Amino acid sequence: MKNWLLILVCFWVFMLSAQSENPPNFVVVFCDDLGYGDIGSFGHPLIQTPNIDRMAVEGQKWTQFYVADPVCTPSRAGLLTGRYPIRNGMTSSKRHVFFPDSPNGLPLEELTIAEILKPQGYTSAVIGKWHLGHLPKFLPGQQGFDYYYGIPYSNDMDSDKWEEYLKQSEDPDYFSKTEFFNVPLIENADIIERPADQTTITKRYTEKAVQFIEKNKSQPFFLYLAHSMPHIPLFVSEEFRGRSKSSLYVDVIEEIDWSVGEVLNALEKNNLDQNTIVVFTSDNGPWLLFKTHGGSAGPLRAGKGTTFEGGQRVPTVIWGPGIVTSGVIDQMGATLDLLPTFANLAGAEVPSDRKMDGYDLSLVLTKKTASPRKDFYYWAFAELHAYRNQKYKIHIKQREAINYGGPTIVLERPELYDLNADISEKYNIAETFPDVVSDLMGNLELHLKDVQDRIPDQLAGRMSKE
Amino acid sequence: MKNWLLILVCFWVFMLSAQSENPPNFVVVFCDDLGYGDIGSFGHPLIQTPNIDRMAVEGQKWTQFYVADPVCTPSRAGLLTGRYPIRNGMTSSKRHVFFPDSPNGLPLEELTIAEILKPQGYTSAVIGKWHLGHLPKFLPGQQGFDYYYGIPYSNDMDSDKWEEYLKQSEDPDYFSKTEFFNVPLIENADIIERPADQTTITKRYTEKAVQFIEKNKSQPFFLYLAHSMPHIPLFVSEEFRGRSKSSLYVDVIEEIDWSVGEVLNALEKNNLDQNTIVVFTSDNGPWLLFKTHGGSAGPLRAGKGTTFEGGQRVPTVIWGPGIVTSGVIDQMGATLDLLPTFANLAGAEVPSDRKMDGYDLSLVLTKKTASPRKDFYYWAFAELHAYRNQKYKIHIKQREAINYGGPTIVLERPELYDLNADISEKYNIAETFPDVVSDLMGNLELHLKDVQDRIPDQLAGRMSKE
Repeated sequence: MKNWLLILVCFWVFMLSAQSENPPNFVVVFCDDLGYGDIGSFGHPLIQTPNIDRMAVEGQKWTQFYVADPVCTPSRAGLLTGRYPIRNGMTSSKRHVFFPDSPNGLPLEELTIAEILKPQGYTSAVIGKWHLGHLPKFLPGQQGFDYYYGIPYSNDMDSDKWEEYLKQSEDPDYFSKTEFFNVPLIENADIIERPADQTTITKRYTEKAVQFIEKNKSQPFFLYLAHSMPHIPLFVSEEFRGRSKSSLYVDVIEEIDWSVGEVLNALEKNNLDQNTIVVFTSDNGPWLLFKTHGGSAGPLRAGKGTTFEGGQRVPTVIWGPGIVTSGVIDQMGATLDLLPTFANLAGAEVPSDRKMDGYDLSLVLTKKTASPRKDFYYWAFAELHAYRNQKYKIHIKQREAINYGGPTIVLERPELYDLNADISEKYNIAETFPDVVSDLMGNLELHLKDVQDRIPDQLAGRMSKE
Repeated sequence: MKNWLLILVCFWVFMLSAQSENPPNFVVVFCDDLGYGDIGSFGHPLIQTPNIDRMAVEGQKWTQFYVADPVCTPSRAGLLTGRYPIRNGMTSSKRHVFFPDSPNGLPLEELTIAEILKPQGYTSAVIGKWHLGHLPKFLPGQQGFDYYYGIPYSNDMDSDKWEEYLKQSEDPDYFSKTEFFNVPLIENADIIERPADQTTITKRYTEKAVQFIEKNKSQPFFLYLAHSMPHIPLFVSEEFRGRSKSSLYVDVIEEIDWSVGEVLNALEKNNLDQNTIVVFTSDNGPWLLFKTHGGSAGPLRAGKGTTFEGGQRVPTVIWGPGIVTSGVIDQMGATLDLLPTFANLAGAEVPSDRKMDGYDLSLVLTKKTASPRKDFYYWAFAELHAYRNQKYKIHIKQREAINYGGPTIVLERPELYDLNADISEKYNIAETFPDVVSDLMGNLELHLKDVQDRIPDQLAGRMSKE
């Protein structure tokens, strides 16, 4: 009996040491248009997300975590490069994101997390939505990734039904046909399905993610699992359709939660859980234009496309039982910080030949020290809208809360909010604290100068029709 | 060694059986004006409530739990009697709640939870705010309670500074003086302090609650711990002032969470945790009039005084590791249901000589069966404003979202909301679903007839000045 116990203990010690030989693996689960309030542990009354909630309890629940930009393409560029998208031409006043007729992509001289980690022996994959250039010369293989499986731009593109869809925005069944959207599914550089069958897409991404984990279990890896859901039009597999008894949106999120569970299971089954960090987050706030069809920013103001908190603060959980100390982190962090954080944990080098905007959060993860991030600049459509320093946030420009597609509103006087006492940005206190306004305006001006040296707008271009 | 183990097991079995000899104890922690979004596990980004969150994980987190009325006095009457306050004269179109010049109280012929449980050998206490009549003949001792320690009405009453306070509503320090409010602290029927020192009131309620638990550990008890916080003016003890580094409101809630922890500790220390049910909830939504000084309804619309979800849906956790099966309960429940639920679990009888409005939730607590509550009537100021049946909610009257003190708005046409797809009551779908509107209107008319037989308005009265 005692011998068995000894063998068991030795085996366990061996497994632990085998795990820690490699630098840690990184998995980033990046949802599309998931709102701050759309997760159970972030306050949604109906969406049940037991797997993400378990990550939040066992790991860190970040309640003030930002994306680099409130729309898709720039947000992704910010995450992968650790730079505000204004620096690398990935935000534009002319076109919000890349479209099927865009000739450009993320400039190849930009360095992604995959490229930073490669010298340390990492294998990297993008599974899901790319949206940083759909032409072959801009696909993930050109940016340090060893494998790609997914759609190259948003799931509502390549369609002539957009106007019709908008009119029917309250009927979730109206656009249940995957044929309405001529979006290709790509593996590496080949189109393998067109239109992509979106009803099974969350399930298939998950299967590919699990396969990637199994295949790479004995070497360090970076898996960027960028779900195309819950971006509208919503699709869900048969197993999940109607399961929540609430709404299609709820079904869709519950399938994503299932997917998270499958990823955690795969890590545990392959003995990788003690040496892997999983980040769960979203690319921007909910798409409020679609009313009952879109998500919720919870208590935060506005949603996608705006620089109010509802547009850029996203529900974020960082899990890694062998590395991450559990707790609620109510300090600031951003997707911009993932590159330097992963680099530090992997022993990789952060580029020193260009300006970087991220902070290394590794000590917050491992020891719950104070976050080094004390401020954040809110850019949208190539314009600086707002700036947060500690608890104060100043707005100088805005977009409409529901339909951000209109012109930028330049405020006559800056608005000031105390995000500690006024989580919903309701009460402008600029007149009460003129000194704070002037301090924050000073930093804002400096930042505008700091980003002058930049790559020109890559989003505005349009290919002529063939 | 083996003998020790045996003795330990025997002792443990003995303790468990000793606990289960008695019917279960009940503790209701009832906050004042705490909003749906003001708890960590209900989505607040800054308020840290580890004790309440622990209750939510170990017990049941109820995400669609309602109070009987969106203001103080009627809400309390509904909880303690299991009847809509319209039935027992506890809601009024003339005065919202009881005031220091009110001559009346909860009618003595009404039966409270304490009176229902008494025949089963229960000892009961009110610790905290009563607000069901401050004259001696209406104090808790007249309504089945064996002990009372607390304030008889709201903590902002007996003051000539109300108007001034309103003007200063954004300065949390302005009303830090407990002397501004001439509120008495009462023990049983004696005034023991006037004005009550409100800075230490949460702490003192907690000490009294722990003493009550210790004193009654060998007999069944019902403890109604009705905090006076976070009703404005906000007060917090020295230990908690500034501790959150966020805002006074956050400090106040974190002291309440500490208090919850003390109650749980006392139950565990006295071996009562396996045979006690603790309900944590609030009397109505946040008081939005006070801006950064009040709380947040999270994703829900409006707050206190309104029949939107933000006014009547409250963050509710039901804990009891020996009795309650853990999980998220996203079905409906109400404070009206506590009386029949406790009665069933205690083997007590629900009154059969009067109309009751509660449902017995005991099987939801113990076995997570479907909730028997499928609908809810939203009353405010003696008028029926709204009605929910399953996912649909119809509004026929409303009050202003921020300052509910104005006149009742009678809607020209009923508004209909789908609370499953539209958690924030943003999109009126009455025109799309006329049949649903007409079904719900039918039930609403029946309910109006059903409450015709009722005790007249007890709140409107005013004593002449002496």
